Amino acid sequence: MNFPSKLVEEAVGEITKLPGIGKKTALRLALFLLKQDENFTVSLAAALLNLRTGTHYCQICHNIADAPVCKLCVDHYRDKTTICVVEEATDILAIENTAQYKGQYHVLGGIISPLEGISPTDLHIDTLLARLQSGEVKEIILAFRATMEGDTTAFYITKKVKELNLKITTLARGVPVGSELEYTDEVTLGRSIVGRINYEV
Amino acid sequence: MNFPSKLVEEAVGEITKLPGIGKKTALRLALFLLKQDENFTVSLAAALLNLRTGTHYCQICHNIADAPVCKLCVDHYRDKTTICVVEEATDILAIENTAQYKGQYHVLGGIISPLEGISPTDLHIDTLLARLQSGEVKEIILAFRATMEGDTTAFYITKKVKELNLKITTLARGVPVGSELEYTDEVTLGRSIVGRINYEV
Repeated sequence: MNFPSKLVEEAVGEITKLPGIGKKTALRLALFLLKQDENFTVSLAAALLNLRTGTHYCQICHNIADAPVCKLCVDHYRDKTTICVVEEATDILAIENTAQYKGQYHVLGGIISPLEGISPTDLHIDTLLARLQSGEVKEIILAFRATMEGDTTAFYITKKVKELNLKITTLARGVPVGSELEYTDEVTLGRSIVGRINYEV
Repeated sequence: MNFPSKLVEEAVGEITKLPGIGKKTALRLALFLLKQDENFTVSLAAALLNLRTGTHYCQICHNIADAPVCKLCVDHYRDKTTICVVEEATDILAIENTAQYKGQYHVLGGIISPLEGISPTDLHIDTLLARLQSGEVKEIILAFRATMEGDTTAFYITKKVKELNLKITTLARGVPVGSELEYTDEVTLGRSIVGRINYEV
């Protein structure tokens, strides 16, 4: 593609680095910005920079937060005896949208995947174990994607927490196999969390 | 949707103002930025700001440019006797990609649309007439979308330049009626520019 200007080319280059955005869409977005008032781009850029530089991660559950501890962890109305362990903060959003769960969360920040070089030490498993050792927690829900990596991670955590005598549950297999939590519809995800089953190794 | 932080919510709010990006995609992009190195967001934001604040518009044809005059207008190898009049700079890109046209361009910056309140005075028609009055130009190609608005604009310009005795052509109607130039495939658009026809009012 022959871009009309270096600046357009550079902007398109940066925008196409975002997931799911190709050259045509990037060009369309760049030209859209050119047609808008300058303030539009200024506030977009500021919001992105503020997001990246100002976002905290909860010291307890590693969720995205505005403060050192996230709003779910400071909420006294939430059940402290159950922790739902998820891969990413987006999974918390998906589960919260079902309105079927009122316990705590723990974000691992990924999933065990030897193919991608992600080992248990790369994930927030240490802090999960520390939370469980306090004795307050009675149940953990392993809410991972229904793939080999999800099963591996669930297996690893189950072995790690075996001596704590917790109830270990996993989402009902209403979640379509091979798909990611984030895209599961709310009814399916809600049912799968209500009908969660004991995790058998 | 319950966003985990105000900063995420603000960023999602700004991103969804872009065309064709909904809340889910915006959230996905915001969380993607959080997972990347800080430099990623810094250079994305800088590229967008540079684009918006640093882009010039060609003094001659109103195309997007890095300098006061765009690279198509300063190119001595291009035919100075033909001007292709288009709605937007993206249309120039689309026509250039066909490699079937080696003349000049003129960007109107929109199309006459009474419904959207765009009148001829909102467009770069004055500067087009000034270019035509120099006497160097022998032909103008009216390359607008195949809609009522496109036809109206072509009709208006034809009436305006009648006394100059120019050859007035329009794209062959190989372009699907009702669609925009930007999305026409290169072969169809290339053929329609080669087989352009005299404009009959």
